[in-house]
Amino acid sequence: MSSSFGTIFKTTTFGESHGTGVGAVVDGCPAGVKISRDEIQAQLERRRPGQSRLTTPRKEGDQVEILSGLENGLTLGTPIALMVRNRNQKPGDYSQMSNIPRPSHADYSYRMKYGINSQSGGGRASARETLARVAAGSVAAQFLKSAFGVEIIAWVSQVGPVEMVLSDTEVENLSRSDVDATVVRCPDLQKAELMIAAIEKAAAEKDSLGGVISCVCRRVPAGWGEPVFDKLDALLAYVMISIPAAKGFALGSGFNAATMTGSAHNDCFVKDGAKLKTKTNFSGGVQGGISNGQPINFSVAFKPVPTIGKPQKTADYDGCEVILEGKGRHDPCVLPRAVPIVEAMAALTLADLALRQQRSNL
Amino acid sequence: MSSSFGTIFKTTTFGESHGTGVGAVVDGCPAGVKISRDEIQAQLERRRPGQSRLTTPRKEGDQVEILSGLENGLTLGTPIALMVRNRNQKPGDYSQMSNIPRPSHADYSYRMKYGINSQSGGGRASARETLARVAAGSVAAQFLKSAFGVEIIAWVSQVGPVEMVLSDTEVENLSRSDVDATVVRCPDLQKAELMIAAIEKAAAEKDSLGGVISCVCRRVPAGWGEPVFDKLDALLAYVMISIPAAKGFALGSGFNAATMTGSAHNDCFVKDGAKLKTKTNFSGGVQGGISNGQPINFSVAFKPVPTIGKPQKTADYDGCEVILEGKGRHDPCVLPRAVPIVEAMAALTLADLALRQQRSNL
Amino acid sequence: MSSSFGTIFKTTTFGESHGTGVGAVVDGCPAGVKISRDEIQAQLERRRPGQSRLTTPRKEGDQVEILSGLENGLTLGTPIALMVRNRNQKPGDYSQMSNIPRPSHADYSYRMKYGINSQSGGGRASARETLARVAAGSVAAQFLKSAFGVEIIAWVSQVGPVEMVLSDTEVENLSRSDVDATVVRCPDLQKAELMIAAIEKAAAEKDSLGGVISCVCRRVPAGWGEPVFDKLDALLAYVMISIPAAKGFALGSGFNAATMTGSAHNDCFVKDGAKLKTKTNFSGGVQGGISNGQPINFSVAFKPVPTIGKPQKTADYDGCEVILEGKGRHDPCVLPRAVPIVEAMAALTLADLALRQQRSNL
Amino acid sequence: MSSSFGTIFKTTTFGESHGTGVGAVVDGCPAGVKISRDEIQAQLERRRPGQSRLTTPRKEGDQVEILSGLENGLTLGTPIALMVRNRNQKPGDYSQMSNIPRPSHADYSYRMKYGINSQSGGGRASARETLARVAAGSVAAQFLKSAFGVEIIAWVSQVGPVEMVLSDTEVENLSRSDVDATVVRCPDLQKAELMIAAIEKAAAEKDSLGGVISCVCRRVPAGWGEPVFDKLDALLAYVMISIPAAKGFALGSGFNAATMTGSAHNDCFVKDGAKLKTKTNFSGGVQGGISNGQPINFSVAFKPVPTIGKPQKTADYDGCEVILEGKGRHDPCVLPRAVPIVEAMAALTLADLALRQQRSNL
Repeated sequence: MSSSFGTIFKTTTFGESHGTGVGAVVDGCPAGVKISRDEIQAQLERRRPGQSRLTTPRKEGDQVEILSGLENGLTLGTPIALMVRNRNQKPGDYSQMSNIPRPSHADYSYRMKYGINSQSGGGRASARETLARVAAGSVAAQFLKSAFGVEIIAWVSQVGPVEMVLSDTEVENLSRSDVDATVVRCPDLQKAELMIAAIEKAAAEKDSLGGVISCVCRRVPAGWGEPVFDKLDALLAYVMISIPAAKGFALGSGFNAATMTGSAHNDCFVKDGAKLKTKTNFSGGVQGGISNGQPINFSVAFKPVPTIGKPQKTADYDGCEVILEGKGRHDPCVLPRAVPIVEAMAALTLADLALRQQRSNL
Repeated sequence: MSSSFGTIFKTTTFGESHGTGVGAVVDGCPAGVKISRDEIQAQLERRRPGQSRLTTPRKEGDQVEILSGLENGLTLGTPIALMVRNRNQKPGDYSQMSNIPRPSHADYSYRMKYGINSQSGGGRASARETLARVAAGSVAAQFLKSAFGVEIIAWVSQVGPVEMVLSDTEVENLSRSDVDATVVRCPDLQKAELMIAAIEKAAAEKDSLGGVISCVCRRVPAGWGEPVFDKLDALLAYVMISIPAAKGFALGSGFNAATMTGSAHNDCFVKDGAKLKTKTNFSGGVQGGISNGQPINFSVAFKPVPTIGKPQKTADYDGCEVILEGKGRHDPCVLPRAVPIVEAMAALTLADLALRQQRSNL
Repeated sequence: MSSSFGTIFKTTTFGESHGTGVGAVVDGCPAGVKISRDEIQAQLERRRPGQSRLTTPRKEGDQVEILSGLENGLTLGTPIALMVRNRNQKPGDYSQMSNIPRPSHADYSYRMKYGINSQSGGGRASARETLARVAAGSVAAQFLKSAFGVEIIAWVSQVGPVEMVLSDTEVENLSRSDVDATVVRCPDLQKAELMIAAIEKAAAEKDSLGGVISCVCRRVPAGWGEPVFDKLDALLAYVMISIPAAKGFALGSGFNAATMTGSAHNDCFVKDGAKLKTKTNFSGGVQGGISNGQPINFSVAFKPVPTIGKPQKTADYDGCEVILEGKGRHDPCVLPRAVPIVEAMAALTLADLALRQQRSNL
Repeated sequence: MSSSFGTIFKTTTFGESHGTGVGAVVDGCPAGVKISRDEIQAQLERRRPGQSRLTTPRKEGDQVEILSGLENGLTLGTPIALMVRNRNQKPGDYSQMSNIPRPSHADYSYRMKYGINSQSGGGRASARETLARVAAGSVAAQFLKSAFGVEIIAWVSQVGPVEMVLSDTEVENLSRSDVDATVVRCPDLQKAELMIAAIEKAAAEKDSLGGVISCVCRRVPAGWGEPVFDKLDALLAYVMISIPAAKGFALGSGFNAATMTGSAHNDCFVKDGAKLKTKTNFSGGVQGGISNGQPINFSVAFKPVPTIGKPQKTADYDGCEVILEGKGRHDPCVLPRAVPIVEAMAALTLADLALRQQRSNL
């Protein structure tokens, strides 16, 4: 399962950053779903390096190719294979590092795992692998939207010390264009300016910054998610922490729950037409691992990019002390580009649980 | 997969709190491993209600029965079935709630999922299901200890507002008896007293408290964990958030990573005998989803127990406003009892990845 | 996956013949399905040793215990755990064999696999493990019957040299009572007498006999089965060959297809009310791995029981020649008792594919 | 799992015959394995249409492209993506059939499953999908050969009424060049001529022929295969019946076992150096689902190709009687081309079980 995810709606990714290309095979999408290549491409553009002054100027121009599974824009029920070819590789930039495991990269742990020292370095640990996830995730998102009306929107809620909080009502009305209004993908324009300034300062210092991405999944029907192990929230935690550089996951109240009393934290019910809703949503839309019909809210913490221009004192594989200075162009902050990745992983998770929910009762 | 976890070392749990019993089938444990029933029972005792003044006085006296898979205390390579019979049920205590979905419980979402309203309420959402996990986890922990020397130790690091931080050195030397020195399972005796006071105050107010459990996995060899989807940290996030009441997961620096710069957060290497180690461990022992030989550190946030004696204004399934007052005896804080559950889930995760790591190179 | 089967409707079995008991956990059965314990028990009785003069007189009196998953006879959607306790063990009978791997048993290959020599011999290779499958299969069959009207009937179609063939019409009208009319479970009374005579002759010679079981699954809707790898017929082959002593599997025309021309073998369509049906059914009800609405017909070949009273010249683990003479009481022919096992495995396969078929289109 | 196979060594295929291409992603192959693209291509050539006078003259010229997972001819431990682009499509040939489900094809069952009527007809049921399996299987075979010395050789043992039997010694010494000595891939030259004559006769009559492929896997160590559900023989049955047109599977004695007595069928042991071997091999190299060190022998029955030039009286989707006459060029007998497919599926099965066997004991 290391490169596959899902039980019914199942995604397998392949490809290294220095090989021919990266791609994904999406198996289990129902037949007859309308899938727009343009929507896939649009999400890839949001993930693309070089899209703004905040990100590396390397222009990949990643164009997704659909290899199978669609006919006249409709799914056939067969595996949907998606691929993006690699180009514009500059392996030279990495050559000085060949005997030096980059700090907080996967070079060292990959070598320990596989017993080989490949040119490709961390291999599948490259952020470029996430391109395949974004493409696959867009297929899932289009399915969820057309079949259930589900909407998934992520945004940058923290960069370094700059935090931003939205009210429940603001989250309910948030649109993707609100998010994309600034290059940092923070929908609060004032905070966005502070975030941009913080990133530019880090870049000037040849350093990098971490942050937090928040996400809401709206109109998810009650009943999705499995008890015990494939809980909706557990699977979200799994896919989010599987994103490179993710260090933490929080659903609803998250770590704040630790400081609260039960009487303050409990989400009591009120009538909502023919159904019930909860007055508050500290639960983040999930109870007992199963959606309760409220918006699903979660946050993901990302560490600062480990590749920095600033010199670092570290050791090579022989244990000799060396000074490492990154030369390649790298983002000082991945958060804005990671927004579509978070959306993609949420969509893949929900699409699978949606299909698993069918026939859980007669 | 909803009641199963693992690819090679695979655990399936069964049982509701109000049925005949709860249990687990552990499949894929290698043959010839010495398994002590006493060690399993000891972990069950740590999870048991009624073990201290902080927990509900209900004495379950859960005795684990080993149904298969062992001969003369050694594993056969066949499935190990473990069961604990239920007793001392007081279904009457729950009867008043039958038409009222308990706030922040799984009653409502289970009914939405399965379309039935069972006496058993949330069914598998009961904390009693975790008993099966603890039993299975002990098998995994005994395997990891004997085959690789791995040690897994969890402790309570926060209860309500009372936080406790251990240094890397303290974590390295922490023992299970340090943890069990106080009923609250916090190894800092002064903080433990404050935690106990906070819990007793909450109990007196018929309320409940959340908190945080931290955990370290020591002597995990470098190389465990799969790239992309079955990353070690992603699987830990998955299993930890699958524990009832868990709301957040953090590996190493966790959400603090969001506020740090790359130059501060990077774990640089130094010589360590014939190998390398890192000077710091903000990564929490995992890089690119693969263990790097450093201690694996993580934390899990738990919400306050939703069942409280304090009256709550909520609605029944018909939408009518009701005042709900919990009558059963419930823990004001689950943290001390959740310590062996966290250890169990970590053990199940590592046992599976250990076996998957074999033959990843020739 | 070694002890689990299924993707959505998933069964895990446990237990050795010499341990505490054998059982199964059935996970993924929808909620609200009526399950009769008596029907489970009835299928166990059909598998039971000692039920007729043809089988070993050992009376197990296997009583199934339902540990979880049901409330008032209805499924909860949670795992259904079933167990049968072992009794009447006579380990002494097997003791002389301890250093001798029994020919065509699993003793030798188990020792090679696990590196241990357990008292339990082949461990999970015992026919007693199939008891768990029969119990689980009955749950699946009851679900299939109530939700889709599916009927699964198997019978003995060959014992040693005695073969019996039913016409398509006879298969369509066959009932379980027709099958159970004779102790050999062959619905052709004359052939049944010949089969019984053949088995009694083999028993008198302290030898054993093989045979063939045929099975039909009626009223399976068109559309079940997955393309490529989880084809309906491929999964049937898998589960049937997983039954101890099975050596061959044939769908529809089976090995006869090898001698036929396309023009003779093709199943042409004719109008059938608002739908189509095929004039012939050489395909056995499956095309491209997917059911086509015709009866699903298949056969399974079983080898003669390897445990025989007749002396055999073989070698012990040290390579020394020995004469082995089986002393325990064993069936001279397993076919009659294997009929409910074939039915159970067919039911488990179809139940899973039925649930997977939901939502394969919108 | 419909397009994926395997637990550790895992293959996912994609692509329809009328789309951009077909391919496979092989995940879980250990790092550091030498993989030759030429060997993959050689197996594709053996599967290629138009390679001899017996097969359709359509020249596909399928060239495999390796998209990821290799560096300098060595595996990286990452997914190996393989693709072959489609070309030379003549969709016109199929157009007259659009409203007619072809007899004994998957057109009808696919429409019932997916609820759509795609131009691509059976979609994934096309024999072209097997190209991806052959490519992936070659990777598995190269891994098995270099890591364990395993050899897998299949051959045509029956075409229509012409049968051919090899002795155990002949099977032991059989080479791939023996198999490829004739265009029909039957290593007995005289029988080969009879088979060729039979195929040419069928072709002249615009008809088709079925047959049997036999296969041996040599030097498989004892101990591969899992008890209960993932038995070596059960998985072989599963993958073989998953090949288009397969109708039957037999291990070792197969259906002949039904007519034998236990004393004749039992494989008794004799000393073989420091180990044991069996005097006979009716078991086909597998006991209790686990390899016993003897050659693994099995056979697969294939039905005659359903597409024939001969007119057939059938019905269209509206139930109207029509006369169908196939116009495309099609093989009168797929057996010779299916030989590398059988080898590929055996290799994928064994590679996965080989990796699962690691660490089944300590």
